[in-house]
Amino acid sequence: MQGILSRLQREHQGSNVMSARNAFYAQSGGVTAVINATACGVIETARKYPNKIANVYAGRNGIIGALTEDMIDTNKESASAIAALMYTPGGAFGSARYKLRGIEENRAEYERLIDVFKAHDIGYFFYNGGNDSMDTAHKVSQISRSMGYPVTCLGVPKTVDNDLPVTDNCPGFGSVAKYIAVSTQEAALDVLSMAKTSTKVFILEVMGRHAGWIAAAGGLAGKNREDAPHIILFPEIPFRKREFLKRVRECVNQYDFCVIVVSEGTRYKNGKFLAETGTRDAFGHPQLGGVAVVVANMVRENLGYKFHYAIADYLQRSARHIASDVDVRQAYAVGKAAVQYALLGKTAIMPVIKRISDRPYRWKIESAPLGRIANKEKLLPRRYITRDGFGITAAARRYLEPLIKGENYPPYINGLPKIAKLRYRPVKPRIGKKFVV
Amino acid sequence: MQGILSRLQREHQGSNVMSARNAFYAQSGGVTAVINATACGVIETARKYPNKIANVYAGRNGIIGALTEDMIDTNKESASAIAALMYTPGGAFGSARYKLRGIEENRAEYERLIDVFKAHDIGYFFYNGGNDSMDTAHKVSQISRSMGYPVTCLGVPKTVDNDLPVTDNCPGFGSVAKYIAVSTQEAALDVLSMAKTSTKVFILEVMGRHAGWIAAAGGLAGKNREDAPHIILFPEIPFRKREFLKRVRECVNQYDFCVIVVSEGTRYKNGKFLAETGTRDAFGHPQLGGVAVVVANMVRENLGYKFHYAIADYLQRSARHIASDVDVRQAYAVGKAAVQYALLGKTAIMPVIKRISDRPYRWKIESAPLGRIANKEKLLPRRYITRDGFGITAAARRYLEPLIKGENYPPYINGLPKIAKLRYRPVKPRIGKKFVV
Repeated sequence: MQGILSRLQREHQGSNVMSARNAFYAQSGGVTAVINATACGVIETARKYPNKIANVYAGRNGIIGALTEDMIDTNKESASAIAALMYTPGGAFGSARYKLRGIEENRAEYERLIDVFKAHDIGYFFYNGGNDSMDTAHKVSQISRSMGYPVTCLGVPKTVDNDLPVTDNCPGFGSVAKYIAVSTQEAALDVLSMAKTSTKVFILEVMGRHAGWIAAAGGLAGKNREDAPHIILFPEIPFRKREFLKRVRECVNQYDFCVIVVSEGTRYKNGKFLAETGTRDAFGHPQLGGVAVVVANMVRENLGYKFHYAIADYLQRSARHIASDVDVRQAYAVGKAAVQYALLGKTAIMPVIKRISDRPYRWKIESAPLGRIANKEKLLPRRYITRDGFGITAAARRYLEPLIKGENYPPYINGLPKIAKLRYRPVKPRIGKKFVV
Repeated sequence: MQGILSRLQREHQGSNVMSARNAFYAQSGGVTAVINATACGVIETARKYPNKIANVYAGRNGIIGALTEDMIDTNKESASAIAALMYTPGGAFGSARYKLRGIEENRAEYERLIDVFKAHDIGYFFYNGGNDSMDTAHKVSQISRSMGYPVTCLGVPKTVDNDLPVTDNCPGFGSVAKYIAVSTQEAALDVLSMAKTSTKVFILEVMGRHAGWIAAAGGLAGKNREDAPHIILFPEIPFRKREFLKRVRECVNQYDFCVIVVSEGTRYKNGKFLAETGTRDAFGHPQLGGVAVVVANMVRENLGYKFHYAIADYLQRSARHIASDVDVRQAYAVGKAAVQYALLGKTAIMPVIKRISDRPYRWKIESAPLGRIANKEKLLPRRYITRDGFGITAAARRYLEPLIKGENYPPYINGLPKIAKLRYRPVKPRIGKKFVV
């Protein structure tokens, strides 16, 4: 990035003839412990080039904020409030699960978006999200051109699922990976110490959708076969009940206990998720509760061991208190790079993380066209999973270990993490006309 | 404690005529993130008085280790390994859910215990646990005297449930309280940022058995009525479904989202736990999964909001990575004080934490007779719960806040917390005769 920076600074010095335009930034999809660090990177970097970017408007509730002309004026936020985004989990401006449909299906939405961009002199669009969002950013880039109002569109990566292609890893993943690895190690010590007279089997359910990256991170808690976790259930490996139960029994016989990390996306060979086994409650409703409950039932019915399970759910993706330092720095770096690329005139791209070396871990930011990223899912490669399908390989460790390195602790007040206090001053609407999403 | 210390040191200097005896230390019941800090306090303090305590033998798997003559020779552990117990969660020597029955029912067990103590010249018994364990320590003290082999018996407090009487709080609680307060704050930021288009209701299930202390700690995450958590369900307050659902609806209407912290021990007016509602799976088995699942079902069936839930389970009580500094220091202090009291000839007592002031928080260690503690449960007082039964009062905050203060981080290697590596050298059996527990 050093090259980009000096080039930008040179251009910046000679740029006072150009008129500055505004930027729109939005968070999209499930949030992470570090998505606000990316927001911080975008805003702080934009503030360095006031002759090019007059203001960053943040969409309230993501892209919905643009459609409804509901934007936050980040220029009204103090430098210290913006800096505090570095250690604030959640999505500070609000995120949304909202996907723009194809232009044929819903031209009105795209036109509205461009209308709002025009009305507020928005020349830069930074969309911070996962696969779907990269698709949206890509489409907006194309449509803005075809509508005669070209906007510089940058995707900015974010997803705990780590399933974006091209980039070596995704900001947000390193911190959830660290949380799951640390929690697995800690809980395993607890279970081991009680196994003689209490719980024998402990199950930890983790996120990740169709990708086993988060589940794989649980594997970092142990090195040898006897170490927890003894079994990892990946979405990529069809679930085989008999082999699974056999392995649980072996673990309890050999090590006195068995720790299982199970991905929410684990499924049978026929593609059916374990979590939808058709078990129903007394009212006939499908049984709630994730795959951990299903696996626990299986262990109880077939082996009879005493068990416990934890469902980390949102705790894992909001656990800023145990964020990976590498992750926080990368989250900031992609935000910063997005602005720098935009100012160099690049559009329809996303900053990606490129790994230079594993040990010592070195990385840099490059760019990749959104078309190569949108709507594609990167699953855990088979070579990262042991032959028996229940563990991670040395190659997986080499990949994962650097991503959880370093502890980036938030400051605390009275025993609780400090969080950013924003003013949330709205941008004055210029269209006024209501738009229903 | 300063007074005790100098008196001990004086006695110590003139004590070379006394012959040193051995001590037995055991961990009991559910472990905590800081029970090993107490073990560290016991062992490091005992090592300072080699003329009085020759060796600390640790029971493998708690009291079972004494009954089966399966003890660990802690003298074989290096000073640095013992020091590392300060930041190692779980029970390093193994704990047990094993309660000695009354002497009338099972005289053999008590006799066996005293036989093992005699065979290994054990003159001090340190029992690190909760209510049940204090009862056991009390009984052992009485029986050892009646059997003509008086043993100095000290209870050492430990329980995440914070339900021991007399002591102001229990080592282990402060850290789980901090974990739950931090996690509630973090998850609430996540839910809030997505509420417009995604999850409206988030439920966090916490431990605590019959006592609402841990649930109350979740309340520290917010200060005002609009802050999360919006609802806390305590075991002490009979669950009223209609009022609960009404409040959930109000929260979603007013604040766009609703965060609920529910104690595993929450029950109906008739005493039945919510978690045993009689719902059954397709095989007719009682539905597993805790109270969070039950509450989530209730919200879905009656209000239809999108929800998520987390079940922290063992993660909360093993989360040494976010331990409260106050808790770690108190856990060490009770271990240290137990040894010091024992050397002063005190028996059948437990070190208790006495609060001197709230702000600034100051505390000291005193002692209390085991008879006042054994088998008693301290519940959350009504004045700590708001009138509507769904929140905590200012008095509760004054009590709870100091206990989560300070961050006592473990050291890390390669992104994961370091843990103590013990050698676990067994004490050579002297009786040999097998004893089946």
